[in-house]
Order: sequence, then C-alpha cells, then structure tokens
Amino acid sequence: MSNSLGRLFRYTTFGESHGPAIGVVIDGCPAQLPLTCAEIDKELVRRRPGQPLTSPRKEPDCVEILSGVFEEKTTGAPICLLIRNCDVDSSKYEPIKDLLRPGHANSTYLAKYGHIDWRGGGRASARETVARVAAGAVAKKYIGQEGMAVSARLVEVGGKDAAHLEEVIRDALAQGDSVGAIVEVVATGVPPGLGDPIYEKLDAELAHALLSLPATKGFEIGSGFAAARMLGSEHNDSFGTDANCAGGVLGGISTGQPLVMRVAFKPTSSIAKPQWTLDIEGKPTLLELPQGSRHDPCVALRALPIVEANVALVLADRLLVYKAYAPCDRTVQRQPLSTLGDRLGE
Amino acid sequence: MSNSLGRLFRYTTFGESHGPAIGVVIDGCPAQLPLTCAEIDKELVRRRPGQPLTSPRKEPDCVEILSGVFEEKTTGAPICLLIRNCDVDSSKYEPIKDLLRPGHANSTYLAKYGHIDWRGGGRASARETVARVAAGAVAKKYIGQEGMAVSARLVEVGGKDAAHLEEVIRDALAQGDSVGAIVEVVATGVPPGLGDPIYEKLDAELAHALLSLPATKGFEIGSGFAAARMLGSEHNDSFGTDANCAGGVLGGISTGQPLVMRVAFKPTSSIAKPQWTLDIEGKPTLLELPQGSRHDPCVALRALPIVEANVALVLADRLLVYKAYAPCDRTVQRQPLSTLGDRLGE
Amino acid sequence: MSNSLGRLFRYTTFGESHGPAIGVVIDGCPAQLPLTCAEIDKELVRRRPGQPLTSPRKEPDCVEILSGVFEEKTTGAPICLLIRNCDVDSSKYEPIKDLLRPGHANSTYLAKYGHIDWRGGGRASARETVARVAAGAVAKKYIGQEGMAVSARLVEVGGKDAAHLEEVIRDALAQGDSVGAIVEVVATGVPPGLGDPIYEKLDAELAHALLSLPATKGFEIGSGFAAARMLGSEHNDSFGTDANCAGGVLGGISTGQPLVMRVAFKPTSSIAKPQWTLDIEGKPTLLELPQGSRHDPCVALRALPIVEANVALVLADRLLVYKAYAPCDRTVQRQPLSTLGDRLGE
Amino acid sequence: MSNSLGRLFRYTTFGESHGPAIGVVIDGCPAQLPLTCAEIDKELVRRRPGQPLTSPRKEPDCVEILSGVFEEKTTGAPICLLIRNCDVDSSKYEPIKDLLRPGHANSTYLAKYGHIDWRGGGRASARETVARVAAGAVAKKYIGQEGMAVSARLVEVGGKDAAHLEEVIRDALAQGDSVGAIVEVVATGVPPGLGDPIYEKLDAELAHALLSLPATKGFEIGSGFAAARMLGSEHNDSFGTDANCAGGVLGGISTGQPLVMRVAFKPTSSIAKPQWTLDIEGKPTLLELPQGSRHDPCVALRALPIVEANVALVLADRLLVYKAYAPCDRTVQRQPLSTLGDRLGE
Repeated sequence: MSNSLGRLFRYTTFGESHGPAIGVVIDGCPAQLPLTCAEIDKELVRRRPGQPLTSPRKEPDCVEILSGVFEEKTTGAPICLLIRNCDVDSSKYEPIKDLLRPGHANSTYLAKYGHIDWRGGGRASARETVARVAAGAVAKKYIGQEGMAVSARLVEVGGKDAAHLEEVIRDALAQGDSVGAIVEVVATGVPPGLGDPIYEKLDAELAHALLSLPATKGFEIGSGFAAARMLGSEHNDSFGTDANCAGGVLGGISTGQPLVMRVAFKPTSSIAKPQWTLDIEGKPTLLELPQGSRHDPCVALRALPIVEANVALVLADRLLVYKAYAPCDRTVQRQPLSTLGDRLGE
Repeated sequence: MSNSLGRLFRYTTFGESHGPAIGVVIDGCPAQLPLTCAEIDKELVRRRPGQPLTSPRKEPDCVEILSGVFEEKTTGAPICLLIRNCDVDSSKYEPIKDLLRPGHANSTYLAKYGHIDWRGGGRASARETVARVAAGAVAKKYIGQEGMAVSARLVEVGGKDAAHLEEVIRDALAQGDSVGAIVEVVATGVPPGLGDPIYEKLDAELAHALLSLPATKGFEIGSGFAAARMLGSEHNDSFGTDANCAGGVLGGISTGQPLVMRVAFKPTSSIAKPQWTLDIEGKPTLLELPQGSRHDPCVALRALPIVEANVALVLADRLLVYKAYAPCDRTVQRQPLSTLGDRLGE
Repeated sequence: MSNSLGRLFRYTTFGESHGPAIGVVIDGCPAQLPLTCAEIDKELVRRRPGQPLTSPRKEPDCVEILSGVFEEKTTGAPICLLIRNCDVDSSKYEPIKDLLRPGHANSTYLAKYGHIDWRGGGRASARETVARVAAGAVAKKYIGQEGMAVSARLVEVGGKDAAHLEEVIRDALAQGDSVGAIVEVVATGVPPGLGDPIYEKLDAELAHALLSLPATKGFEIGSGFAAARMLGSEHNDSFGTDANCAGGVLGGISTGQPLVMRVAFKPTSSIAKPQWTLDIEGKPTLLELPQGSRHDPCVALRALPIVEANVALVLADRLLVYKAYAPCDRTVQRQPLSTLGDRLGE
Repeated sequence: MSNSLGRLFRYTTFGESHGPAIGVVIDGCPAQLPLTCAEIDKELVRRRPGQPLTSPRKEPDCVEILSGVFEEKTTGAPICLLIRNCDVDSSKYEPIKDLLRPGHANSTYLAKYGHIDWRGGGRASARETVARVAAGAVAKKYIGQEGMAVSARLVEVGGKDAAHLEEVIRDALAQGDSVGAIVEVVATGVPPGLGDPIYEKLDAELAHALLSLPATKGFEIGSGFAAARMLGSEHNDSFGTDANCAGGVLGGISTGQPLVMRVAFKPTSSIAKPQWTLDIEGKPTLLELPQGSRHDPCVALRALPIVEANVALVLADRLLVYKAYAPCDRTVQRQPLSTLGDRLGE
C-alpha cells in the first residue's frame, strides 16, 4: 500500500509514464461536494507538459471521472480519476534501455524489483504527479469550502532569484544541462488545531507528502534551517503580531497563521550532455540521451500545482480528522491564535 | 492512532513529562532477538538529562520490560518498555499555568484539546523522546544484525561550528536565552532496495520521523537545499565512485551508499529572559519562567541518540517490508549500487 | 480508506453498478509475477451475470490492465484493473428512485450520505464484487506459486441441500421471491504460521473479508457454531490425525491443515413480489420492482468465485507478512502441524 | 502492528499471562472525557477470575492509569492502562512445557515464532482480554455519552439453555472436561449511519473484533445462519416495524435499530482429562495438566464483559469516523430508520 497517502481523505495513485493511463482513487472524500471534470482539468492544465521551457511531450491531460460522482456531486463512494497517456513514444528509449542512468531511479528500481521499466521512466517518472494534481483539485475544492487556499511560487532557480528564470533555463539547455530550484508554498485560512501529535504532526505530514515528490532533497517550514542560527528570544513569535517563525505550526498543530514551507528540487537527472555510466551488466558505457528525448530542464517549473496539490491533500485529510474530534456545537475556528487576545478579550 | 509510526515494525509511545511514566509499545519486532534492559539503558544514558549544559532534571531513566521478552529473547509479542518519571516537580509551573508560552505548544494544545497540561509541557514535552530512544535501542539491535549502523553528530550550534559548543551555550545561558543547532545523521550498511515508492519513499519516511521530533524546522538529504544551486551534470552521482549527492536514496529507494541527512533544530522556546505574552483569557502578561525551571538551552545537545533512534526505527520497518518481497533464496544485498560494476563484472 | 483491505497485498475497489466502470488497484503485489488479461478474465467468467438462474444483465466483463504489468509480468507498481460496465439501463429504476427498499442498503446510504444513487444500487450493488474477483485472480496466482489453492461450493440453498438447487430457485422465482444459501470454502496448501495475533488473527481477517460481501449474515470456521455444543475432549484435534475441528487455525495462526469456513447469505432483498415500504418523505407506498429489473434470485450462486477471491486475497496478504518475519534460510513450511511427529521424528 | 485495532479510536494491547503486567494504549480517545480508575475497575471486576465456576487464579485486577488523563479527564494524549499480574505461578507449567497442547495455540506459536512461551499460555492466554475490558470501559463511557449501550448474555452453554449453566458446568468439571457456549450481544442507541462500506462495514468490523477473541469459532448478526433458510419476502424488514432480521445493519451501515449478534465459543482446550499428544520433538506423550492448573471450564462465562468491550470499541471508532463526515450543524441522529415515516412526516 505504498502508493497511498492520508488517513481519512486517502488517495492511491497508479500508472506509468508510457502505460495506457495514470490515475488515482480518492477514498474518503465527503459526499455532496459539487465536482466536475472541468474543475479538475483546470488544475491539470497548470502542470501540462508542452509549455515553454518544459518537456515537449503533448498530452491533453483530460480527466475521466470513473466513479464516486453522480449528478455532479460526490457520493461518498471512492472517486476514480483517469488520465489517458496519449503521446507515448517508447522507441526513443530503446537504445538506452540497458543503461543505468546517473541520478535517476532506474538503478534502484532494478535493485528492488529485478527489472527496469525503461519506457520513459515507468512508475518513477514525474508523470505520476498528474494523478496528484487531479486528486489535489478535489482536495482544494473541499478545503476551499472551509476558507483554506494553497499557493506555490518559485523563489529560486539555478541559484538565482526566480525573476531570472528564462535566462537560467536557456543557459542550462544550451549546455545540455539542467538546474535545481526552490519552491515556496503558503496555505492560508488554516484554522488552529489541525495536526495530530506526536507522529502525525502537521509539519511532519507535509514534509512526508512533499518529499514523496520526485527530485526533492529538502523541506523546511517557517524559519527552517535559519532557525538553527537564531536565539530563542528572536525565534519565539509574540502573540498578537504577524511574526511567524513557526511557519504556522507549533507542536505539530496549526496556529491559525499561514503555513509557510519551502522545498528544494535537485536538477533534473536526465540531461542532453553525455555521461559515463554502467550498463546492467556493469560495463562502463557512455550514456547519450536520444535526440528528441523529452525532459524538463527544471522540474520545479511545472511543480507549482503539484506542490499545491500535495499540501491541499494533507490539509483535507487533517481537516477530517479534526472534525472527528470537534464538538459538534463548535464550528471550525478561523481566527489564528495570534489574535487570541482580541477574540478572548471580547 | 497518531502516536504510532511504522508499517510492520510499529511503535506507539505514551506518557507525559510529569505523569507517572513514559513508555512505548513496539509491535512487530521479530521473535528470537536477544534483548536485555541493560542494552536499552545504555542508549537512555546518552539522552539523560542532568548532564553538563542540559536540563538539571535528575532522572535515572531505567527501563522496565513489561512484555514481549522471555528468557532474554523477544517472543514476537508486543514489547512494552516503561520508564518511570522520578524527578517530577510540577509546583514550579503553577504560577505560569494560565499563560500561553511563545514558541511553545501549549497554545495549540489549548486550541485543539480545550485544556493545557501545564505540568512540564505534558505530552508536548521532549521527555516523550525517551520512549523513542528505548524503542530505537531495539531497532538498532535488529538492524545491527544486518550490518546497519546509525550515527548522529552536531555540526552547527547557534550558527557556529559545533567545536564552539560550550562557548555558544554558556553565552546563551548568560543572556537567559537559547540557541538552535543542526544535526547530521549517517546510516551505513543500508542495503540497496529499502524504501517503497511512491508514498513510502525512504527519504519521505525519514523526514516524517525526524520532523516528528520537537523543535525541528527542516530536513535535508544528501545535497539537500544546496541541490537547488547545482547543475544536473554536477549532481548526478557517477556509478563506481563515492559521489553521494543523492544521500543514499534515488527514487525513494536506498542505493547502498550511506544515508546522509541533516535536521535543523530551532532554539528552545523556554528561556529565562522575560517575554510578553497573553494569558488564556487574552490579557497581555509578562512571562517569567520560575527560578529553577529546568530546560535545555539547546535541545539538539541531547538529540543525537534521539535522531539516531528515529532513523533506526524507520530502517527496521523498511527492512521488514523489504524482506516480505525478497525472494527467499536471495540474501540481503550489502553492496552499494556504486560498486555494481565490480559485482556484476565478476 | 474504507474501500481498501490488506496490509501488504492491499487492494482498493471503486465503481458503481451503473457508472462507467468498476475497478481495483492492487498495491503491494510482488514484482515478476507472470500475469495476463486472459488469466483474470477466466475468473471473471465464473461470476458473470447472464448465466442460467442468475441476473439477465449481459456484461462481457473483460478486464483492462491499466498499470503495474509490463511484458506480461508484474513490475511491483500498483496494478489497476478496469472492467467497463456495458449493459447499463438505469431507466428501469427511475419509477422507484424515491422509494426505500426493504432489506436493501439504499435507506442506510441515504441516512449516511444524504442521497440515493438509485441507478442499480450504485456502490452498494453486488456488481462491486467483479473487482474483487479480478484482484482475487492475481492473489490466486501468487499464492498458487506457494502451493495454496482455494475452492468454494454451495452446501445449502433455501434450506435444502445444494443438489436441489434448480428446483429451489425455480420455485422462488415462480413466487416472485428469493432464497438464501450457505457457501463452504476450503483453502489447501496453507503453510503453518500464517496469521498474526492478537488482532490480525487469520480467522478474524477471513471473517472480515467475507462479511464485507453483500448479503452475508454469518461466518464460521471449522466446527463453528457446532463447537458450542461439544466437549473439550471431543473438540481438541489430536496431532497426527486428520481431525480438524479447528478448521485450520489455532490461536489465529494457521496449523497447516485445510482452512474450512462457511458463510451464510441471506435471500436477495430485491424481489418481484410487491412490498409495502416508505418513500424518502416517509409516505407508505407499495414497492413493485419494474418489469425487467435484473436481479439474482439467490446471490450465492454467483458468489463462489467471489468468496474464493476474498479468501485468496487474505492469504496473499498474510503470506507476505509471514515472509517479512521468516528467516531467509527457512523456506515456507508446507507440512501441517498434524504431521509434526513424522517430520520431527525423521 | 497486529496487536492494534481501530481507525481513530485505536487500541494496542500488550502483555503475557505470566509476565509482569497486561496493558493497553488507547490512542485517539477524545479529550475532556471524565475518567477514573474506579470506573474501569468496575468493568474489570466483571471478568475477574476467582469467581464461582471460573479459574481459581486470584487477581485483584486494579488498573493504573499511566497517561492521557489529567485532573480526572482525558487529555487527548494516548491513555495507557496497566494491570499488574499478581498471582503468577509458572512452576505448575514446567512439567508440560515441552508438550504440544491439543486445541491450544502453543503448537502454532511454536511454528510461527520458533519457541513456546509456556508460562500460562503467554500471549495466547485469555488473560490478554483484561486489557480489552479496560479499554472497553473507556469506549463505553464515550459512546454512553451519545446514548449507546452494549449488553451481552449467555444464551446457550454446552448445548443447553443458559438457565442450566451451573449443572452443565459441574458435569463437565466432574468429567475433567469443558464445554462451549453461545453469547448474544446487543447494542442499543446506535444512530443510523455508522459503518463504512465496502471494507469497513460495521458488521464486518464487529465480526473481526469478536473473532479476535480466544476460543471463538463463529459470528452471526441478525438472522445469521437462519437467513440462509428464509425467503426474501420474510427476511426483508418492513420500515415502521420492529422487525430486525438485519440485526441493525444494512449494506454495512447501521439502521438505527439494535445491533444483535451472536458468537460461538468452543470448549476450553485445557482440560483435566489426559490426552495423547506430541512433545516438541514429535514423540507421542500423554498430556496430563498438573494438579492445580487454573482454567475456566467454559470460557464464555467470563466472556460477557469482554464481548461487550469489543463491541463498544468498534462503535467508538465508527462514531468518530462518522463525526468526521457529519455536517457540523447536524447532530447525531438517534431515531432508527424504521421510524423514518414519523420523523420525515412531521
């Protein structure tokens, strides 16, 4: 069951890059939520390949709702969302199908499963993330009803401010190389009380979800690694102010302030530049990706909707757990703890 | 069930800082593993308070094995390990029991559970980690049998190299303040093939486990955030070399090279310096921790065995899942993929 | 996640009777298992409607493998199996769409989810079981490799020996009524040691799986309810004999003897005979199922492959957990404990 | 994690019959529930050994609350309940420690774990159930707040009406034998809507919980096995009446009527009468339980509070899941569906 995440709002993804389809089953979405294909497709468009500076693969990425929705509302039954793979061309990969690819998962998949699904990366391909974005669209709809919103942005590409994006990417492409990036994601409207200590802390679950994305190498929340260089008196957020070193979480539970996180993406492992490697029999070989191989020079470019989806999915899940324990006469609190003075002072 | 972690080697911790005891139930430890109290106590000693530069609380921290071990071997039944709290003095906390503590979890626990367990931080106290260390001692024993070892070290304290530890801490104490730190943890002997894509990737699970520790704000593996500033051609580790930007994981599966991770700890929220805060009715108040309050000026000092424990517990769990799928005539592989050339070339 | 079952060999089903498709995602099937559509279809044929004495609905029930299989072998990635619904005619249900149906789940689904999916029973339809049979075909293949086999048979229909099947069913149909039945299922080749006390006892898990089938009201293993009328000296199976009051399980762990279970099915709730009921506004109404409504007069007739599938899925799951803990130099034991004398005496 | 049950109200038991203690950790109990040791002890008294016709073992069975309760209210943190074993005398078992015991779990534990915990049955002993009763006391308190109650009674002992209990037991004891029994358990006040299809159906979960009890061989709900002999027109309960063939569950979801279940217990495997068996080396041997061995001639006598506890624990768990999905302005419905006419007609 390693392809599932979530306690109550649980999703399971399936599919390979060059198989017939990618999909997801969402189990535990509340009934009566209005939902249409168009709403999901709108999110899929945001991560679709074939846009400038991204992989030239042409995928329409239109979702089919196979179950769980009737008369444009969720029924409480599991929702299966299917996205067919249309622009599949595995032939390009045939010449390199016996080569280990540096920085790529095909070597570890070989070690673990005894074979390589060489068609476009198989299950390890970032194409799997289309399923998360579809599931995330449903989660966003659900948490949106409670006033929550999630938004990601690129803050750094190839070591530079994201304003220099185009230039950095073109340079990398010109060299047959790739670059890494840092994405920041903010969730607003999160009520105080989400997250379940000790081992389902909200920040631990967010880290888990985000580091399940391909090519991620680091996660931080609020002050993050900078916290290690601060004094306690600087770091402790004062109540009644906007200070948010905590990044919206204390003791694993949301404070009501915005959640602020950053994720580090490594440079795409697939590069045009030739690299020495081994074949599956251990013989040193020069790996040259075939002309027309289709890769993103920077995976983070299309990662924004994916990162948002993963955060929304965690929040939807934690909201349901929260509701299980909330006294029924207490509605979801929307005021952050930082305004507790005002609220309680009334 | 938010106080549990692990799929097959699963542990559940319980207990509060000033309650009668802290404990853990390990469910899923293989039978026939030799185990004594002394082996567990040896790890507990490493995190014990009352050492120089740490909290002056005096706890003997001796474990009692309540179940799951017979004739000094595990039986396959759940192992309950109990550590009594001995040096409990809640009276010190009485004067501040109605105050929200900046940077501390008592405000979010109040929001979530409707009350504050003001006795020494209750469940949110880092005292919970004694249970993890006890469980981790069992995990270390188990993975040690397969040649794995885990070792953590402080790399940075208060923004300085850990060599300056004493000086940094004494400065902070003199100012009534606290400092953050960065801990690096390395696991060696990890065979290729541990970790289960997509949502139980080894690195995602390690991040989850480590960020469930109190006071953590960031996690990175291998190149970590630095990856965002590298080119693909620099970052892709060559097979047959020691290069390890991956930090021992590709596609969520171990490569056989050492796992290398870093965790950022924020400065302890409890400081001697007075801070403005609110009481639970929202009235601004000056918080002065009582004379004799017992806190660590830097939580990371005692964190080393705790960090190790969490990593060992994840590895034990993933090793069991690995074995479920390993062909029985294939023993656990110990050679890293980086030496695949040698191995396969034979 | 209530639509999933299994710890390691985990499956999640989705789809409604009159939606576009029924399907299942199997997560945790070992890699390298040979698998083709034809093998799955062979099982689907056994439960297909349109056979004598069963619902006249015409479904080809051909599976499409959407993921997890490459070059006719499983890859270790999740396997999505899809069966399109072809012969859907919801119009027949329109006249009764606002009526609660006695003995049917539409009243409880209304209470729980706030709506009725009136199209052929929606998610509560026994059509969901086609997904289990598909998943079960994979499980059977896997446990078959280890020498296990599962076989079900009707032992009683409408209170009579199953030899009288045709006559009993025709009588019921003639009266516009339906009948219940008892199915016995036997699993052979089960090695000693499967099942995990205390709460994942093999028999408890089998009961759970089988009572998740529609229309089931009872489960027993071995001597079952008759055990309540026996003396200990009669009931205790002697080692070295074929006595099997235990039904193949002692203390929740398989003994190595055949697993023998029985499941009670109630009569189908959908009957031609008119019944008084309420509409969704609480008004008493006479329910007459429309001419041409398609139902099985006895659900148990097509239940045999479904019951087998559920048992096979539990065994596959428990086999994997067993392997996680089995010393690698110990192969799966196939001799029952009853022959321990012979085995150990050698 | 096979020693845990429940999705949100989750409990994990530990301990052996002759180890230092038996205990349970309840994780996921709502905060602010009033709770004292005395309330738990009251339930423990009901299953305590040393009563007439039961095992002569003398256990005070007083609970110690180790965590999760502060100022006599639950805190939301995990609740550890500990019951020390006081009257342990393993010496009686020494003479038979190398003998397989017919009908007992020591042979399968040996096969699975490679050893026998011969001290009074170890983990397989019914003494484990003291932990369930303790946990069940907490669950009863919680569901009691919502108007639910659970009550079990003996309906049949040794094949006779339970009115003949004393006589049947004394006969069995006189012969050095044991008898089986049937227990009926009824839960009232269960609101419509509990239970989560398809694989967390309320009846499937109840069966799972009850068949995890030692010595159980069968489970039925409502009409149970008798359903197999009924016509649909007889079995379908009419709305607006007390008819309850369903036993309070349709499609896996509670109807609002009482839950009615029966569990079959086999005769205790430990009997005074000598039995031929094998020793662990496979040599035929006569097993004579030592004078003074302490066993119940009929396990079902003390099973009533245990059966109730298991049902209460399932209901507590399903109530929490129900609440996660209930609109916050809708309070838990207490009227059964059978009165829907009245309710909706208003």
